[in-house]
Amino acid sequence: KVYPIESLDYEIIENELFKQDWRSRKKIQIFQYIFLKWTLSLLIGLLTGLVGFFNNLAVENIAGLKLLYTSNLMLNDRYFAAFAAFAGMNVILATCAAVLCAFFAPAAAGSGIPEVKAYLNGVDAHSILAPSTLLVKIFGSIFGVAAGFVLGKEGPMVHTGACIANLLGQGGSRKYRMTWKWLRYFKNDRDRRDLITCGAAAGVAAAFRAPVGGVLFALEEAASWWRSALLWRTFFTTAVVAVVLRSLIQFCRGGHCGLFGQGGLIMFDVNSAVPYYNAVDLVAVIFIGALGGLLGSLYNFLVDKVLRTYAVINERGPYAKILLVICISLLTSCCAYGLPWLAQCIPCPTDLDQRCPTIGRSGNYKNFQCPSGHYNDLASLFLNTNDDAIRNLFSSTNKNEFHLSTLLIFFAAIYSLGIVTYGIAVPSGLFIPVILAGASYGRLVGRLLGSIATLDVGLFAIIGAASFLGGTMRMTVSLCVILLELTNDLLMLPLLMLVLLVSKTVADCFNKGVYDQIVRMKGLPYLEAHAEPYMRHLSAGDVCSGPLITFSGVEKVGNILHALQMTRHNGFPVVDEPPFSDAPELCGLVSRSHLLVLLKANKFTKNRTISGSEVLRTFHAYDFAKAGSGKGLKVEDLDVKEEEMEMFVDLHPITNTSPYTVVETMSLAKAALLFRELGLRHLCVVPKTSGRSPIVGILTRHDFMPEH
Amino acid sequence: KVYPIESLDYEIIENELFKQDWRSRKKIQIFQYIFLKWTLSLLIGLLTGLVGFFNNLAVENIAGLKLLYTSNLMLNDRYFAAFAAFAGMNVILATCAAVLCAFFAPAAAGSGIPEVKAYLNGVDAHSILAPSTLLVKIFGSIFGVAAGFVLGKEGPMVHTGACIANLLGQGGSRKYRMTWKWLRYFKNDRDRRDLITCGAAAGVAAAFRAPVGGVLFALEEAASWWRSALLWRTFFTTAVVAVVLRSLIQFCRGGHCGLFGQGGLIMFDVNSAVPYYNAVDLVAVIFIGALGGLLGSLYNFLVDKVLRTYAVINERGPYAKILLVICISLLTSCCAYGLPWLAQCIPCPTDLDQRCPTIGRSGNYKNFQCPSGHYNDLASLFLNTNDDAIRNLFSSTNKNEFHLSTLLIFFAAIYSLGIVTYGIAVPSGLFIPVILAGASYGRLVGRLLGSIATLDVGLFAIIGAASFLGGTMRMTVSLCVILLELTNDLLMLPLLMLVLLVSKTVADCFNKGVYDQIVRMKGLPYLEAHAEPYMRHLSAGDVCSGPLITFSGVEKVGNILHALQMTRHNGFPVVDEPPFSDAPELCGLVSRSHLLVLLKANKFTKNRTISGSEVLRTFHAYDFAKAGSGKGLKVEDLDVKEEEMEMFVDLHPITNTSPYTVVETMSLAKAALLFRELGLRHLCVVPKTSGRSPIVGILTRHDFMPEH
Ligand SMILES: Nc1ncnc2c1ncn2[C@@H]1O[C@H](COP(=O)(O)OP(=O)(O)OP(=O)(O)O)[C@@H](O)[C@H]1O
Ligand SMILES: Nc1ncnc2c1ncn2[C@@H]1O[C@H](COP(=O)(O)OP(=O)(O)OP(=O)(O)O)[C@@H](O)[C@H]1O
Ligand SMILES: [Mg+2]
Ligand SMILES: [Mg+2]
Repeated sequence: KVYPIESLDYEIIENELFKQDWRSRKKIQIFQYIFLKWTLSLLIGLLTGLVGFFNNLAVENIAGLKLLYTSNLMLNDRYFAAFAAFAGMNVILATCAAVLCAFFAPAAAGSGIPEVKAYLNGVDAHSILAPSTLLVKIFGSIFGVAAGFVLGKEGPMVHTGACIANLLGQGGSRKYRMTWKWLRYFKNDRDRRDLITCGAAAGVAAAFRAPVGGVLFALEEAASWWRSALLWRTFFTTAVVAVVLRSLIQFCRGGHCGLFGQGGLIMFDVNSAVPYYNAVDLVAVIFIGALGGLLGSLYNFLVDKVLRTYAVINERGPYAKILLVICISLLTSCCAYGLPWLAQCIPCPTDLDQRCPTIGRSGNYKNFQCPSGHYNDLASLFLNTNDDAIRNLFSSTNKNEFHLSTLLIFFAAIYSLGIVTYGIAVPSGLFIPVILAGASYGRLVGRLLGSIATLDVGLFAIIGAASFLGGTMRMTVSLCVILLELTNDLLMLPLLMLVLLVSKTVADCFNKGVYDQIVRMKGLPYLEAHAEPYMRHLSAGDVCSGPLITFSGVEKVGNILHALQMTRHNGFPVVDEPPFSDAPELCGLVSRSHLLVLLKANKFTKNRTISGSEVLRTFHAYDFAKAGSGKGLKVEDLDVKEEEMEMFVDLHPITNTSPYTVVETMSLAKAALLFRELGLRHLCVVPKTSGRSPIVGILTRHDFMPEH
Repeated sequence: KVYPIESLDYEIIENELFKQDWRSRKKIQIFQYIFLKWTLSLLIGLLTGLVGFFNNLAVENIAGLKLLYTSNLMLNDRYFAAFAAFAGMNVILATCAAVLCAFFAPAAAGSGIPEVKAYLNGVDAHSILAPSTLLVKIFGSIFGVAAGFVLGKEGPMVHTGACIANLLGQGGSRKYRMTWKWLRYFKNDRDRRDLITCGAAAGVAAAFRAPVGGVLFALEEAASWWRSALLWRTFFTTAVVAVVLRSLIQFCRGGHCGLFGQGGLIMFDVNSAVPYYNAVDLVAVIFIGALGGLLGSLYNFLVDKVLRTYAVINERGPYAKILLVICISLLTSCCAYGLPWLAQCIPCPTDLDQRCPTIGRSGNYKNFQCPSGHYNDLASLFLNTNDDAIRNLFSSTNKNEFHLSTLLIFFAAIYSLGIVTYGIAVPSGLFIPVILAGASYGRLVGRLLGSIATLDVGLFAIIGAASFLGGTMRMTVSLCVILLELTNDLLMLPLLMLVLLVSKTVADCFNKGVYDQIVRMKGLPYLEAHAEPYMRHLSAGDVCSGPLITFSGVEKVGNILHALQMTRHNGFPVVDEPPFSDAPELCGLVSRSHLLVLLKANKFTKNRTISGSEVLRTFHAYDFAKAGSGKGLKVEDLDVKEEEMEMFVDLHPITNTSPYTVVETMSLAKAALLFRELGLRHLCVVPKTSGRSPIVGILTRHDFMPEH
């Protein structure tokens, strides 16, 4: 069963019922609304913070136990058993994640950021933010990351935050008897949009422990509409997240959290290295940026190709999905366990304040197959959680910790694994693979430059990560701030800005950002902020074609029902005709969901008379409030008897009497601007000359898509 | 002569001429446009960075010489001569600044941020961004700051950045023969808006050396319309500023810049103090936030009162303005020189690595009247540049450097002086006074808490400054980032977020942010992002009243001229009437500036015939491009002969045929949303029922103002 993609509607609907309701609203109710909205923001912050912490705790413990078990077997020279255990546990974890994703919530696979982005643009694809998606996202992400895939938990956290916000913003649920009166104020798309933006920001804040970065991410990448008030609200939410995380980590410092030692919440404190740089370094940074932009756009290109291939496989059903996941899991295990054998054993440096090789805990200097007193540098990267690997790459304590060949192998492996991993039926973020690949690439360049450069190799790794992020995701300010908050080194700011500017500029020459690509690939009708050039040459009248389905002010029930059943349109113009007005005139626009509620009540009149006051008495404005996605009435729920088909119903009270209109000669570009800036769902096109029908067409989101 | 406040217009005007022009535009021209826009952004960054540096260099040297001379006189016990010299030099500098402001560019007085904010909202007050304003702003700000007033150079820097951007975005100038073809693409309000946003961001970046903070400031406080593309452009501009400043300061490290020792570009490196805090500290921080919010809103209230008083004085003419400046200058000098006598001499701490007392250079531990080996702590705050005073307050090397009574006196003096200083005819920023007052208040609380708190007093000073900034300016994210970049201490982030949230919340209960207040006080018609509640109860038709002045498609020249002379309206609906159409119908909207260009050419026809193609041949689209503010044609420039009055002119080619329209029954709130989101200047109101005149009214910015 294919669910159609529907749009959200941010227009203020002005019909008699709502106007009456607005007039009766008192100060106290406005206060309730404001109070509740802040409370919800607080709850979103709290819950997202908790989930983020839980996520990390679970991953660190599961993955930690797995790695410990493996390395213990290796210490006893049982290499095959170790591999079997390692690969076996990975496959089991991967299968768990895949089963969850394939059977319970297919929408939970992937990063989730493109979907959230599309939702905040006004596209409501089926069950993207449903509770089932939320649950699968949380647990699927835990299993997926613990299974050692080259994927991150950051993208899923954003999606999780958005799901939490959506759940809280439902405005109660009739099914579960949660119909608290206050909550009903949130039964509209505008408030939900605000809350979900907060949720996305909270997700980033929880994933990276970067509250300001979270706000900026929501602003730069996620949200399509932005107001100053929202800035403050997201700031509040992310502050809550920061506080929650800080307290919980403080609690864990006491040793109550198992293997959650340093905190999987990546926070790479490289503060120790002060960035001194000279002209050579600047040239190197620009070079890294340019090459990173190239590699990043290539990454996007390949991810797109792989996604299209996987889409074919995934369409074959859940078992095909699970099989694919198992294959990739085995591939990943083989790489992670096999490649370190290529590396030579390196004698431990003597001037260390930590033990070397590392035994019985996570960290640098993995022993692997080496004799005691030696470590395997490639294993330190592969047989660690991704967070630890990043920390190792960013660290600046030992400049020569990793061989050149090691960095090269790791970079190549991660770059390819990252590409083939995204798209399998597991919640998978893109940040971590990109950072890993970028950091190894940056460190590699730093090592190659050797003593020509004065900048530390750890800082080169950060620069490399930034260049890759800029090249794939194409964000600027938010990435800059997130990286600063991650690495806790403000003096890096100029270099980070430089490298981000260069890599984004280079990459933008080739293709779009990875999230935009995925949005497009999934066929989500995303409205760009600017109008396409071709739109300048078309007029609004050219685009809307085909017979328009309209109703008259007092319409026969049968006609309405027929229209609702025969079409999937969600908006119908209402035209008043001579008995009720002198000439045909546009009365307004009525939406499908309102029609359904009206018809459900079965209050019809025998004759074509205006019976609006009756409706005003029977209904309350809340009855027409917009339910959460997938929750409203459907045509099948109606129960209209045969004899009622010939009766009439007055549509005036539920008709939005002031829809936004454009004249048919307006260029499509200008109409698109109106449509996009105001977040409309339907835009009426009226004729230029009088004497014709009062409305010539209706524009929806689909009409603004280039492929249309 | 009173100049009316006019609005800017961001609507895409679609008339035949422009459409033709658009159709003829080629790829290469689009490339030229993009290339030039980035070049201009680069230039804005470069110039703003240079000006910012020059500003600091001049201030540090002038003020430094002044203070050195004064302290040398004091060392010789010539106290009265010292005071005379100090006050005399202050008055001279102040008078210079005031003369510049009063005679050459009255618009340069004050902070400038409110004006830039209003401009970016679409309000074009006379000569706000003119070149004369730019020059006076730069030099007036230097003299003003050097004169020792309690005011900052940060607000003026924002205004300066915006002026530079405006100058570059003029699209050439016919007067100075700078009519390069490429530049003409920028002759419209939309591109100017983008550039000026970049300018404002560059100004903040140059003032605080905070590139990311600059972007966020432009986003949160300055800009009313925001697109993702703009984020990137401002980011680029501020990155350029950062690079320029860094290189110049590097150059100054070599000692080529006179007294520009530590760099007046405030950059309070308090990185040394790691913020450890316990529950008591948190409570203290919340308390500081709440009280800071109260004091901040009181500050706003008092500033508003004082401004209203000063407005009366300033209206008396330039001499009254200068007199007021001299009075305030004397008052400031008396405070700065007189109050330190109240403080006791403190023996120098022994464990210092700098000399104490400081002689012959700027810095801590001023000697003042004390015997050698002692310092006067109040003089260390008062007889220093404001930047140095802030650095002293933020410093955490010597916890007991300042006495309680010193901090209290300083706080009270700065709080009052800051209030009475803003509003005099000198370019004056609000950031520095607020930070000074806030920092002394925070340090005071920190000292009072003594050993109960574990947080350092220097960090308390930062918290206090944040609370004051939050309480007066009501920004959140941008202040947070600016403070982080200023103090270079990312670990303060959670505390800063907390204190900003608390103080803003508290202060918002009482009044609006200081910039909003000033915008309102100046009578600039600022459009809020959200509609006022009363607008819900009015319809668009209710608001537009009075006889509408319309033209018909081919109109008599005399009528047009009469309308242009008799009214100041800038938009006139064009209605086609029966000879040219079946029934009267709305053809579109024509703007005053286009009419003037058309009439200036004196191409009229004897009869009422359509002669549009003639117009299309005579004119080029660029002829109608919008000139910079105050530069277009005026009615007086027209030269229409008596016999031409009875002739006709075809308005069709210059009529915008697709203006945005709303139906008269639409609520004003909904119309305001359309008006605001699309940045319109005129909004046509059309009738609901047919058979009436095709347009019932026109809404402009003034109609959405509450006082209207
Ligand atoms: N009442 C209508 N009568 C005739 N055509 C319509 C009507 N409403 C929409 N259309 C056309 O049908 C096409 C598909 O629109 P669709 O029915 O999916 O719109 P919708 O469901 O109301 O909005 P969306 O799909 O964006 O949620 C559009 O191109 C639009 O022009
Ligand atoms: N062509 C017109 N005929 C009659 N009234 C008009 C016309 N244009 C504007 N008005 C009315 O005059 C009032 C003042 O508008 P004003 O003339 O200042 O607008 P404007 O100069 O075109 O725009 P702005 O002042 O915002 O730049 C408004 O309330 C508006 O309703
Ligand atoms: Mg549809
Ligand atoms: Mg006007």
